[in-house]
Amino acid sequence: MTFEIFKCDLGGRIGSIQTSRGTVETPAFVPVIHPVRQGIPAAKIQDMGFNLVITNAYIAMKNHGEEAVRRGIHGIIGFDGPVMTDSGGYQVLEYGDVDTDPAAMARFEEGIGSDIAVPLDRPTGIGLSRKRAGELVRHTLRVSKETLENSSGGPLWAGPIQGSEHLDLVRSSAKALTGYGFRMMALGSPVEFMESYEYGPLAGMIAAARESIPDSVPLHLFGAGHPLTIPLAISLGCDTFDSASYILYARQGRYITEDGTRRIKEMGYLSCSCEVCSKYTAPELAGAKDKERIDGIALHNLHAIKSEVDRVKEAIHEGRLWEYTMKKMRAHPRLFESARILEQNGARFIRTTPRFKSRAVFLFGPEDQYRPEVISYHNMAREYTTRKKILCITRDAQIKPAYLSPQYSTLKARFIDPGKVQFCQYNPVLGIIPVEISDIFPAAHYVYGGRAEPGDFAEFAITWDAFLARNKFAEIHYEKTDPFISHFIKRAKGARRLALKSRKRKNT
Amino acid sequence: MTFEIFKCDLGGRIGSIQTSRGTVETPAFVPVIHPVRQGIPAAKIQDMGFNLVITNAYIAMKNHGEEAVRRGIHGIIGFDGPVMTDSGGYQVLEYGDVDTDPAAMARFEEGIGSDIAVPLDRPTGIGLSRKRAGELVRHTLRVSKETLENSSGGPLWAGPIQGSEHLDLVRSSAKALTGYGFRMMALGSPVEFMESYEYGPLAGMIAAARESIPDSVPLHLFGAGHPLTIPLAISLGCDTFDSASYILYARQGRYITEDGTRRIKEMGYLSCSCEVCSKYTAPELAGAKDKERIDGIALHNLHAIKSEVDRVKEAIHEGRLWEYTMKKMRAHPRLFESARILEQNGARFIRTTPRFKSRAVFLFGPEDQYRPEVISYHNMAREYTTRKKILCITRDAQIKPAYLSPQYSTLKARFIDPGKVQFCQYNPVLGIIPVEISDIFPAAHYVYGGRAEPGDFAEFAITWDAFLARNKFAEIHYEKTDPFISHFIKRAKGARRLALKSRKRKNT
Repeated sequence: MTFEIFKCDLGGRIGSIQTSRGTVETPAFVPVIHPVRQGIPAAKIQDMGFNLVITNAYIAMKNHGEEAVRRGIHGIIGFDGPVMTDSGGYQVLEYGDVDTDPAAMARFEEGIGSDIAVPLDRPTGIGLSRKRAGELVRHTLRVSKETLENSSGGPLWAGPIQGSEHLDLVRSSAKALTGYGFRMMALGSPVEFMESYEYGPLAGMIAAARESIPDSVPLHLFGAGHPLTIPLAISLGCDTFDSASYILYARQGRYITEDGTRRIKEMGYLSCSCEVCSKYTAPELAGAKDKERIDGIALHNLHAIKSEVDRVKEAIHEGRLWEYTMKKMRAHPRLFESARILEQNGARFIRTTPRFKSRAVFLFGPEDQYRPEVISYHNMAREYTTRKKILCITRDAQIKPAYLSPQYSTLKARFIDPGKVQFCQYNPVLGIIPVEISDIFPAAHYVYGGRAEPGDFAEFAITWDAFLARNKFAEIHYEKTDPFISHFIKRAKGARRLALKSRKRKNT
Repeated sequence: MTFEIFKCDLGGRIGSIQTSRGTVETPAFVPVIHPVRQGIPAAKIQDMGFNLVITNAYIAMKNHGEEAVRRGIHGIIGFDGPVMTDSGGYQVLEYGDVDTDPAAMARFEEGIGSDIAVPLDRPTGIGLSRKRAGELVRHTLRVSKETLENSSGGPLWAGPIQGSEHLDLVRSSAKALTGYGFRMMALGSPVEFMESYEYGPLAGMIAAARESIPDSVPLHLFGAGHPLTIPLAISLGCDTFDSASYILYARQGRYITEDGTRRIKEMGYLSCSCEVCSKYTAPELAGAKDKERIDGIALHNLHAIKSEVDRVKEAIHEGRLWEYTMKKMRAHPRLFESARILEQNGARFIRTTPRFKSRAVFLFGPEDQYRPEVISYHNMAREYTTRKKILCITRDAQIKPAYLSPQYSTLKARFIDPGKVQFCQYNPVLGIIPVEISDIFPAAHYVYGGRAEPGDFAEFAITWDAFLARNKFAEIHYEKTDPFISHFIKRAKGARRLALKSRKRKNT
């Protein structure tokens, strides 16, 4: 197996996993196929463009036994592309235990020709004590190590990362599995987090796992089929994620929209243009016979999830994953809170976010001060040194770079000796912009459309203080009528603070 | 003609216009059909669910003349539902003048059986002096008055509102047209605003027009086919809007996405699931032969616009138009700036926004303090009067209404005589929540997930001051460790301010 990465943005990557049975484009949603009663035929799912599916090896074992080995799992479910198999860990989580052992399950998964297989782990779920969770993690690690050691080398084995809200366990098990030689990882137990709107802990768990394994190792997220969490999961570095949500929701009459799920009965309009939604009105679909309604909603749900993944891929392609995900987070306040995790990881994302983007960076407010491109620029301004003793700082101009703006030329003309003046423009989000480096990305490639409430911009304050500490200005000229800079000018203790008068020439 | 309104939210309405040839569900996008060379057949457009189209009567006159009258416009373009006709005003805007006169054009529009017709107006476009714009408006008003007076009563005549950035002209012409008896209005010249990202002035123009005509009069917006402006236009009260953007963009290789348009050549992934996008990959569509590519993109663009309108309709249906539009505005910073117009109109929207919603209101930040439901609650708190001399104010609890929250019970237990204490919870966006009215919508029906930077919440400050002025408290108990309330407590000059200690009982 090889994993190639073609494009990154934040923690998100566009790549491909080569398996014995073909290529899986990532990020990829991996639909769950039931080995016995599957509503939407696997072939149809393949036609829709899903190039990896997952099925449950334990259920296959119980229902098909040796026949599954004879016919192979691809024959059983009728899918001729790469197939991932879960091992029954989910059943362990649901029913406490399963009547097979890890070695037998591993032999079975290899026997049925699984392309990506998971050792029989013991998921931690959520809400366990640190002690109990630790026991399960140790068990899972031992099983995983043995499975990999005894593997005949058929499938690509994915190492099951457990630990849930106990992030130290998540990190240590991720590191241990890397040490054993797993070349793909699978992060367990997010479902309960999602069902209880605990998006923050979910995001924390993903970040902890991702930072503990090499970039070159693809990360699978188990049971992540909620449309709202897809951009967040991908932004934090998940490459594949499976779910049966499309059919489970359908059975409950829940229709996936880009802002979450809705009860079909309560809907007035179907805004989707997929094959299902262009055939029915909302009341028609809600009123259809059980099988027709469930199959219809399930098929739509699959289209909706695929569209969401494709929107995220296009956002990575365009280098606007931050903008896309941040906007997406506004589908629910609890989800929006979990955006903090992206802010906290902003600095870590610098390494995997393109240094330059051909497209202007869109800035809307405080959250954007933590996007990697912005942090990089703040760092630059904090290092900026000049011998000039006079600072002239004004709000950023429309025309960029700053040194090409008419505001800059007029301003220069107002100083007798502009060569002695350090001209800076500023933006609440991007911080201090010395004209000399105002053409460095993104200083010449951004659009801002937000408020300017001083208290919201902690990074600006840090940069401002660092800039003044490093450059001991004797004089600072600023616009007194500008409440934002007037707020910060107070912090410039040492310097003479002079209000820029409308047209009067300054003596220097 | 009758116009029925079924549901409102903000300035947006779900309704229907009855015309002689059938019902038009609103809000409705009205595709432009070219009377001579039309790419996508009108019949196909009808099948897609567009129940009103617009075509250009002037071009029809020049190219089909009397034949158009014999066959009727429906026969000419091949659409058997309601057809709206523009009069050549656009040609006037483009080429300065047209070689026909208003009376002749009016006769022609009636002759060809137009269902909704527009008098031959003189659009102001943008950038005209107040004086010149005034002349054009007066001309348009005179022509419109004559047209309506001489009408045999065939079509529904839409009164052309002009004036552009001169909002006083917009208002006066809207009022004049109402006075003449026009039962539908059509607002002119937004195209140039959109092309130059001037979303603010565009929004201002729509708001000015809408507030100058009765609710019962549907408002058409000319040439509004940019996907980003649709939610804004509907939220401000536009009922129908036409555009040829779907085909014009297609000819330029521009593909409509929910975040704006993209050059098909630069796209990596098509996230749409419409009939076109499920057939092609982005490179395939970009590489297709001219006609195939243009027709394909045009058809997708129509699907994309229809989906956008349906998403907005569903948002009105769900009572979450504010949330939807505000999120949508984050597609571009310049668009986001124009959200101010929604904030400024928040109070005006109270009348047309449901008093109660079954769904919780989602609050994310400062902009939400201006949403109508929130303004209503602020107004209530500003009027709230109590004789109690002790105020105890704490941050809002998860469990709502406030009087059911464990925080409230514990707090009550800490006062010897809680009956003497006015308990309030607060939320930065929603303001002061006296427990006594904490079950009034939306105080018990909201979720907040944003920051709490005091400077951002001007409405909170006003409510806080009003609440204290009206109720002269001798004592205020508050959480000293809460920076938000600590910021505002300073303004409570008269009262003794007491920090709520962890468990200590307060003497009252």
